[in-house]
Amino acid sequence: MSDVIDKQVYKMKQVYMDNQSNTKLDERVFEAMLPYFKDNYGNPQSMYSLGAISKDAIDAARLSAAALVGATEDEVYFTSCGSESNNLAIKGAASAYKQKGKHIVVSEIEHFSVLYSARRLAQEGFEVSHAPVDRYGTVIVEELEKLIRPDTILVSIQHANTEIGTIQPVEEIAKLVHAKGALFHTDAVCTAGTIPVDIKKIGADLLTFSASQFYGPKGTAALVVKKGTRVTPQIDGGIQENGRRAGTENVPAIVGLGKACDIALAEMAKNTKKISVLRDRIINELPAKIKYIYLNGHPKNRLPGNVNFSIEFVEGEGMFLHLDAKGIFVSSGSACASKALKMSHVLTAIGVDTAVGQGSILMSLSKYNNDAEIDYLLEQFPEVVSKLRVMSPLFAYFEKTGQRKPAGPGTDYDHDHDHCEQ
Amino acid sequence: MSDVIDKQVYKMKQVYMDNQSNTKLDERVFEAMLPYFKDNYGNPQSMYSLGAISKDAIDAARLSAAALVGATEDEVYFTSCGSESNNLAIKGAASAYKQKGKHIVVSEIEHFSVLYSARRLAQEGFEVSHAPVDRYGTVIVEELEKLIRPDTILVSIQHANTEIGTIQPVEEIAKLVHAKGALFHTDAVCTAGTIPVDIKKIGADLLTFSASQFYGPKGTAALVVKKGTRVTPQIDGGIQENGRRAGTENVPAIVGLGKACDIALAEMAKNTKKISVLRDRIINELPAKIKYIYLNGHPKNRLPGNVNFSIEFVEGEGMFLHLDAKGIFVSSGSACASKALKMSHVLTAIGVDTAVGQGSILMSLSKYNNDAEIDYLLEQFPEVVSKLRVMSPLFAYFEKTGQRKPAGPGTDYDHDHDHCEQ
Repeated sequence: MSDVIDKQVYKMKQVYMDNQSNTKLDERVFEAMLPYFKDNYGNPQSMYSLGAISKDAIDAARLSAAALVGATEDEVYFTSCGSESNNLAIKGAASAYKQKGKHIVVSEIEHFSVLYSARRLAQEGFEVSHAPVDRYGTVIVEELEKLIRPDTILVSIQHANTEIGTIQPVEEIAKLVHAKGALFHTDAVCTAGTIPVDIKKIGADLLTFSASQFYGPKGTAALVVKKGTRVTPQIDGGIQENGRRAGTENVPAIVGLGKACDIALAEMAKNTKKISVLRDRIINELPAKIKYIYLNGHPKNRLPGNVNFSIEFVEGEGMFLHLDAKGIFVSSGSACASKALKMSHVLTAIGVDTAVGQGSILMSLSKYNNDAEIDYLLEQFPEVVSKLRVMSPLFAYFEKTGQRKPAGPGTDYDHDHDHCEQ
Repeated sequence: MSDVIDKQVYKMKQVYMDNQSNTKLDERVFEAMLPYFKDNYGNPQSMYSLGAISKDAIDAARLSAAALVGATEDEVYFTSCGSESNNLAIKGAASAYKQKGKHIVVSEIEHFSVLYSARRLAQEGFEVSHAPVDRYGTVIVEELEKLIRPDTILVSIQHANTEIGTIQPVEEIAKLVHAKGALFHTDAVCTAGTIPVDIKKIGADLLTFSASQFYGPKGTAALVVKKGTRVTPQIDGGIQENGRRAGTENVPAIVGLGKACDIALAEMAKNTKKISVLRDRIINELPAKIKYIYLNGHPKNRLPGNVNFSIEFVEGEGMFLHLDAKGIFVSSGSACASKALKMSHVLTAIGVDTAVGQGSILMSLSKYNNDAEIDYLLEQFPEVVSKLRVMSPLFAYFEKTGQRKPAGPGTDYDHDHDHCEQ
């Protein structure tokens, strides 16, 4: 296929499959936000009626947000993003409970905003333990249990993994964490709005979710704080968010979050059914077309839209560029990690071989994907892999000898994610 | 005037004069943001072309932001609001330089996000000194100088005060701060985009500004960090903002910030001229119509749009409600403070009497205000004050005796702004 045709295809097609990084804004959400960009610009903390319109809109959004996760509205605190919520949960709880103990536990495959919040605490005199996961990325509950000590104040385990989609046994974990007298935080960024999330059913004390993961706007998220749980504010200042998060409220975005919650609750079952069928088509049909391809994450307990494969004998970067030229937008797994194609901490934790892992690809689906797009992917993707393997000396060696070339200098990928150290 | 007519007036008129709390979004800014809500939703950290569009847009906005304040683009870090920027500046610098010293200086009339960041640091073992201001709200430079010690690592003085509009001698302050070996941060939320701000000319190491103060969107702001100055991230996680501020970028808002900067630079002189004429009309004409009215803030060194009066013998709350019913939207001074009408820390600092100060009102103007609105204000406001004074026992006593009633129990207003303590 010539470049010219490629470009035509690109113009025709935009197959967006990076929905765990960010979803397309639902048109209905945008419509709900619109008046708050235009006429309803009053500051919600003001005393005049124009401000009261903003205040009422935020109150309504808070009710919607609470309904999405089984909380009450006074347990919902709006922030600017999931990372901020995770920082507030981890650092805020650590600061509030440091008299009780200075030990926290996180899994080794948490989002960077959890891992690096914990690392920051470690620099400040806290101790951090990392709970291991099995080959599917499921936290090993018995191992986690062993890590919890009398001075453990907080355990943070994600509801599902953004990269490999594995859903964690958070209810079981919450029970044992509480039995040992610690608090439980769950990062539900990948699940809230996508699959049912109920903070009471989970038994979490703190729960993070983000609007841009379920067709809401960027720039807004929430931390749900169970009544009675303390967190020290991380952004000090005004009285907004009941004093727990200062700063003029991002009214249009918060309104959008509320609308996205309403839509998610109403349409979740339908979307999950549709998306998981598409997901299973890729998981089942792609290995029939591409050899030496390995599914990452749990085969069953996984997010409805998550497909993560490691593909041997291909360079990740080449794969992304070629797919991009065909209008297929996928991810290496973590948008927050370095753009340099190091293998992610998640794949490392589940024991993926570095040579295989650097050919890993995350296709995360949304309600906007459809069968025609999956057809297109299933047609184009094997072509890309073939093209790349033709150029691969490792693949040539393998085809000739039936042996994988032993790792030499230069193939030992650097796993250190120290990119935010400054 | 009957209630029916009042309501008609209200429907006809919306005289918005709370622009120091938040400005109306410029239509051109919204148009610039629009594509990033609709088609250009890719994650800027991704490797596909849809993400590159977002990345390019952020890069362009960063250039515009840098141009507004005389910085280079690699000195601009986007945050979610002015409060977050101030927290990052104060706590981030304190953390980065704590080996050098643990003393910081702020003025007593800083924004709550500066004051309470400093207070948080004080809880963590830092020492905080508060520089006093004179009766106009100008920092007393000689007093400030005395407060700076060998272990002072940071001095934070706002460029102008949000409530009384006084512009500070930041260039002079920056010089003496640097002479003593400390860093200088200025909160330029009230000035950037409104009057010329040049970080190099000021001599600041850290500078905060916020888009929603100059017709940009809510949900985005910046901290400008001079090359070589260190700040410890306050939101840890991904690689965004060069590792200094994690979280998926709020692309539409950042694009809006950039556009607002472009417009501000191009139209600042014209707007300042227009707005300051309107301001001076109120400052000069209102005292001719209302007795016992006192201007707060510096008579000359003040923001072009700032009018702040204390009006004796009126209850602030009644004044706001009556003006609101006439479609005139004004503020008590700080949207971030408690809605309870305590006298603000700023008015306390400049020595306003509590009985007078609780009848204080901030009218902050924008490029959207016009002469007809000022006419309307000048007509309606005196009526409101008359109506309220008729009901005031303090005013009746004064009219009868020519004496101000001595303060008794119940008139000693609580000045403590402890609203965000949880």
